[in-house]
Amino acid sequence: MRAARYYGIEDIRVEEIPEPVCKEGQLKIKPAFVGICGTDLHEYLGGPTFAPVKPHPVTKETLPVTFGHEFSGTVLEVGKGVSGFKPGQHVSIQPTIYDGTCGACKHNFENVCYNGGFVGLSGWGGGLSDAVTVPSSYCLPLPDNIPLDVAALVEPLAVGWHAVSQSPLKPNDNILILGGGPIGIAVIQALCARGCGQIIVSELSASRQKFAKQFGADTILDPRTVDVVKSVQDLTGGEGVDIVFDCAGVAVGLEAACKAIRVKGTVVNVAIWEKAVPFQPNDLVFREGKYVACLGYIQQDFKDVIQAISAGKMTPGEMITSKIALENVVEDGIKELIRNKENHVKVLVQI
Amino acid sequence: MRAARYYGIEDIRVEEIPEPVCKEGQLKIKPAFVGICGTDLHEYLGGPTFAPVKPHPVTKETLPVTFGHEFSGTVLEVGKGVSGFKPGQHVSIQPTIYDGTCGACKHNFENVCYNGGFVGLSGWGGGLSDAVTVPSSYCLPLPDNIPLDVAALVEPLAVGWHAVSQSPLKPNDNILILGGGPIGIAVIQALCARGCGQIIVSELSASRQKFAKQFGADTILDPRTVDVVKSVQDLTGGEGVDIVFDCAGVAVGLEAACKAIRVKGTVVNVAIWEKAVPFQPNDLVFREGKYVACLGYIQQDFKDVIQAISAGKMTPGEMITSKIALENVVEDGIKELIRNKENHVKVLVQI
Repeated sequence: MRAARYYGIEDIRVEEIPEPVCKEGQLKIKPAFVGICGTDLHEYLGGPTFAPVKPHPVTKETLPVTFGHEFSGTVLEVGKGVSGFKPGQHVSIQPTIYDGTCGACKHNFENVCYNGGFVGLSGWGGGLSDAVTVPSSYCLPLPDNIPLDVAALVEPLAVGWHAVSQSPLKPNDNILILGGGPIGIAVIQALCARGCGQIIVSELSASRQKFAKQFGADTILDPRTVDVVKSVQDLTGGEGVDIVFDCAGVAVGLEAACKAIRVKGTVVNVAIWEKAVPFQPNDLVFREGKYVACLGYIQQDFKDVIQAISAGKMTPGEMITSKIALENVVEDGIKELIRNKENHVKVLVQI
Repeated sequence: MRAARYYGIEDIRVEEIPEPVCKEGQLKIKPAFVGICGTDLHEYLGGPTFAPVKPHPVTKETLPVTFGHEFSGTVLEVGKGVSGFKPGQHVSIQPTIYDGTCGACKHNFENVCYNGGFVGLSGWGGGLSDAVTVPSSYCLPLPDNIPLDVAALVEPLAVGWHAVSQSPLKPNDNILILGGGPIGIAVIQALCARGCGQIIVSELSASRQKFAKQFGADTILDPRTVDVVKSVQDLTGGEGVDIVFDCAGVAVGLEAACKAIRVKGTVVNVAIWEKAVPFQPNDLVFREGKYVACLGYIQQDFKDVIQAISAGKMTPGEMITSKIALENVVEDGIKELIRNKENHVKVLVQI
């Protein structure tokens, strides 16, 4: 079968590999659509970071690994001991790999498993192939009214949904989002589905500003031309916002986030950071603010997103800015996003 | 009457000033005991920071101001319109000055008032004098079984109590406290009164280590000789503590705090910071940790501390390491603490 495998920096090869065998407790899935993620780009340009150079503690695999962790598909085969699934069924894959025994998993926080990983990054195959086998517990059945291309968006949308779930969101809360990339847009959609006050987005890129507006932002701030903290105060009667979602992960944003919240406000960090940055805790102290970090998602986030899409509370289809073939994943996917990422939200690979 | 007034850096004068007049809504208090605080030392050595060089927005006063914000006393006079107090009654003073109208006060968060201050730092007199007039709402009646010297400890104890109230403390939670100074000791006592798992304290000074142990710490770590994060993991079965209270406010402590919490753990900052420090948000991200900042106290914290002392759940008397006369406040108080602060918890001025 075909598989796009990551060998290391700037080296992804679409090649023929043996089809995996569906073992006990597993489903064999034929991937339908696979989103390309910022993490994939980071691995391509600067990795391996998540991709295992020594055996991954759970999958025991090392490079090369099949890529693709944002995907939907169709059940090809149901492994022994699995109930509740049948061939032909459409599913979305929750790709978090966890060991089930560590201090995090013991408390059911699989998303922060000490030995965690992702299908499509850490082994066990990935979406960018003709078939993949995963534990059936990683698969979520899709209702008939969610097409398979939209279902590939469930994973990035779950990141935004999880971030909102970790926040103390109340109805009418005013929100600032730093960064209007795919995760910022996922946060906007989760907020719109769940209800909030005004949504302000700080974003440099003109095309990302347009996307943010299209998906529900009320006000766009360009941090090159306005003072974000002052503008936020002006928009909130001098009080500041209730919650900031930092989807940018840059030093200047951290400072603005801590200064843009109202007293008792919360900064939710959804970003992964390249390095340590200057932080003045007093910016939070004099507001009694909170800084809440979140990572990935849990299965409930996937269920909630699937339900919200099915119920028409989220209509994320227009996040898909391009569909490409597996053979062209590097040129039309990875390289296109590197060249031109601001004009895309999601590039999907059609398997 | 006598008053110890702050004129600026290294300039506190005990001098004669007119006695204040007790106005409508006020109580006139004869201070009994007054604690000297780290803030007083900072103002003396490096201020003015809190003391107003231009008119304070609420008190309208500028330097010189009478010092002393940790104090107990006896009611001398009850102003017009005040009920519930009578001359001779013992009280503890909650010194937070607030404007009552800002975005914080509107939500009853007086401790983070945009224009906040403190009796004894920002005007309206202070404890280091023969008489002070304050709004009656700033005074808390003391039960008969709390002596006036112990009542002067209510203010610093309320800082620790408030910090614990801002944390998600559950019974059996394991705790790390960074810094065993007066605030660290206040946090230890609040935790012991409220119940928790083991209390680990990281502290350099041998005499502060002794105080921390005396007030209820289970384990003392010397960060010069042990790896605090590793030791905490060893003491908690590899998981890390549930909550860190940072009462030190130094860069190396921030990093240790973020790495010492378990997944979903919380760092509570009780310190005021001199400058920005390096911070790697990923240290919180991979644990889904929270960073919670707190400032001062609210009136409920004072009520809770008074009740806990009265009920025998806190016995803070041994925090008092010296009692001095008002005339000697600079030499035996401020300068003694600068020279020898590690051998003191609280120096009280007896008025």
